[in-house]
Amino acid sequence: MHRMKRCKAERAVVNIGSLLTLEPGSGAGPLGIVERAALAFAGERIVYAGPEEKLRDAVELPAAGSILDADGRVALPGLVDCHTHLVFAGSRAGEFAARVSGKSYEEILAAGGGIHSTVEATRRASESELLALARRRLDRFISFGVTTVEAKSGYGLDLENELKLLRVARALRGQHPVDVVSTFLGAHTVPREYRERREAYLELLVHEVLPRVAAEKLAVSCDVFCERGAFTLEETRRILEAGLRLGLPARLHAEQLSRSGSIALAVELGALSVDHLEFIDESDARLLSGSRTTAVILPAATLFAGKQRYAPGRMLCDTGCRVAVSTDFNPGSSHTQNLPMTLTLACLGCRLTPEEAVRGATRHAAAALGLESDRGSIGPGKRADVLILDSPDWRDLLYHFGGNLAWRVFKNGQEVLVSR
Amino acid sequence: MHRMKRCKAERAVVNIGSLLTLEPGSGAGPLGIVERAALAFAGERIVYAGPEEKLRDAVELPAAGSILDADGRVALPGLVDCHTHLVFAGSRAGEFAARVSGKSYEEILAAGGGIHSTVEATRRASESELLALARRRLDRFISFGVTTVEAKSGYGLDLENELKLLRVARALRGQHPVDVVSTFLGAHTVPREYRERREAYLELLVHEVLPRVAAEKLAVSCDVFCERGAFTLEETRRILEAGLRLGLPARLHAEQLSRSGSIALAVELGALSVDHLEFIDESDARLLSGSRTTAVILPAATLFAGKQRYAPGRMLCDTGCRVAVSTDFNPGSSHTQNLPMTLTLACLGCRLTPEEAVRGATRHAAAALGLESDRGSIGPGKRADVLILDSPDWRDLLYHFGGNLAWRVFKNGQEVLVSR
Repeated sequence: MHRMKRCKAERAVVNIGSLLTLEPGSGAGPLGIVERAALAFAGERIVYAGPEEKLRDAVELPAAGSILDADGRVALPGLVDCHTHLVFAGSRAGEFAARVSGKSYEEILAAGGGIHSTVEATRRASESELLALARRRLDRFISFGVTTVEAKSGYGLDLENELKLLRVARALRGQHPVDVVSTFLGAHTVPREYRERREAYLELLVHEVLPRVAAEKLAVSCDVFCERGAFTLEETRRILEAGLRLGLPARLHAEQLSRSGSIALAVELGALSVDHLEFIDESDARLLSGSRTTAVILPAATLFAGKQRYAPGRMLCDTGCRVAVSTDFNPGSSHTQNLPMTLTLACLGCRLTPEEAVRGATRHAAAALGLESDRGSIGPGKRADVLILDSPDWRDLLYHFGGNLAWRVFKNGQEVLVSR
Repeated sequence: MHRMKRCKAERAVVNIGSLLTLEPGSGAGPLGIVERAALAFAGERIVYAGPEEKLRDAVELPAAGSILDADGRVALPGLVDCHTHLVFAGSRAGEFAARVSGKSYEEILAAGGGIHSTVEATRRASESELLALARRRLDRFISFGVTTVEAKSGYGLDLENELKLLRVARALRGQHPVDVVSTFLGAHTVPREYRERREAYLELLVHEVLPRVAAEKLAVSCDVFCERGAFTLEETRRILEAGLRLGLPARLHAEQLSRSGSIALAVELGALSVDHLEFIDESDARLLSGSRTTAVILPAATLFAGKQRYAPGRMLCDTGCRVAVSTDFNPGSSHTQNLPMTLTLACLGCRLTPEEAVRGATRHAAAALGLESDRGSIGPGKRADVLILDSPDWRDLLYHFGGNLAWRVFKNGQEVLVSR
């Protein structure tokens, strides 16, 4: 191998006990683990990731003050949360309290709860109020080592308010180190004022809102909640095809409360992901395994919403599907930003192995966002998004149930979190 | 009411939006909530807890630098975790990984897992190693607002090593702000070397270890794991009665994996608590409701251990039992220090209301330790252990599932945690 010109690194991390590259070719096992490893960054990119003994040959190191000694700790890609409803106003703590205290869904609706209460509060909120709320949520995400968060619209449900939510998500990018990746979910539910005029709402989405979202580049994909009580399979197709014509890849909330048959549609449309999947069956999984579509499971939502049936993660993995894991952070059914806890739940509830769970919040989560060539793994050229755990054993990320082992977080090559 | 001499406060917290006193007489509702409240401390005690408007009449305030403005946030008693196995060495992350990956319990045992692996690692560890490990765990507990942690022995299982664990717990008291309350659990399991000599182990516990524990005042209660595979009902009675004769109140690991009938024994012996209770029935609960014994439920252990059956918290509350909630922090079945997450699980899994869950980790948890007159509620004379949440709504403690809303923690009147 001929000697390449040595790149000048601006930051380095040395004395990493185990580096999880998530690139099976470049390390041991399914997580691509390199022991006694080092990392070097230049700008927002990784310029070296490998054995520490080869670091100095590969790059020119920065001054000592820009070199972090990890003292045997674990380094892995910054976590990617690929399915959240980040931007909303209002609290549903009271609804949660009522629900766990045994109130029926009807009683909760009568008391002003449910998704429409979030829609009303979000419509009333200004962009700056929504920005402040979302920034604070991103602070909590980053405290758990999450460096990329997908954010869906879907609490505006009209032209003005859907655009407002997506503009807030765009504004966050300049105001917070966490990357926010926007998804248009105008088809989250039919808003109250269109309850008797479904067709008019579909027309609004397809002919007014979607074109504006695409023209202003406010989202990188288009999502639909395909479910009884939300949107039918035919309506889902119509909205997703409209998005595709405008250059927005498809995503689906699919098979959450019943089996709708939407997996075949997702595969046909080349969707980036199908999400939830509590009711997916093996024939669906076989379709999925031969496709480019990532299966996103959301076990914290199953638990927090008080459901018994988790997505069959074990079956999806065994069938060869690419499985991602996400919090589904939202004010109703999954009010959590604790992605590591969600990974433990993916093991306990969905029978993923710890390796599969970690892949699910890194490499596979990046794939669900169409970003696998940029992040979700660690190697030269990849974005320098790195989580360092306060432990020498990567399994502690899941074994410390509900804990927070984030010790240092790098985003785009900059240190953005130091644990106390 | 005649005017009392005004006490001089050393610290005060003003502008508390909601103060959860946990003293139903002194505020609204089951949590005894006072709105627009203030607190004042002198030494390690609370000298004022009530409406802010009466603060200045009641106490002489300290200098401004010793007054914290809570800006409308919630204050509640420092959380009490009344059932943990705090002091141990060794990690069982590998066993967790094997278990969720589908390995059988026999395979895990054959690979060196299970409780005996913790016993071996703990026996090998020095007091200073155990101290360092436990201190770090207490740091994590306090980060969640926990100011009192019970710590059981039970990984030594011989004279020397049981005393070692309890001495470590005692030494922690001088080294960490969190109070550690020790319980003797020599009857956690029969150690391997006594497997064919049960009677000899019982003799050892009753005639050698227990008397030393009592003489050295190394524990304040005596606990037994009454279960198939652990200790029978008759063995349990023998050990607990020996403890009682030495002045150590009884506690029981009871009805976890099957119904043993141990509740009647606990009530007969005036036990402080019965813990686990997945298999308790209504007749047991009725016995308990007329007694001084607290029912401690451990929902994180149910979930983390991969069990389906949660303790029937709703039934216990409805029957009139005093119900506490705890993490059961231990390396095998419940590796979590996140007591707020555990309270959310008590609602989701055991059907407690949020009010019952909060009582379960404050007033009722203190009762399980025999400390209800000292802590677990907020009022004049009580220990100044206070958690301030970064929220104006106390329900957020549970609604932020897996999160950490601790903003400030006071222990014995001193500020011991400041959130970043």
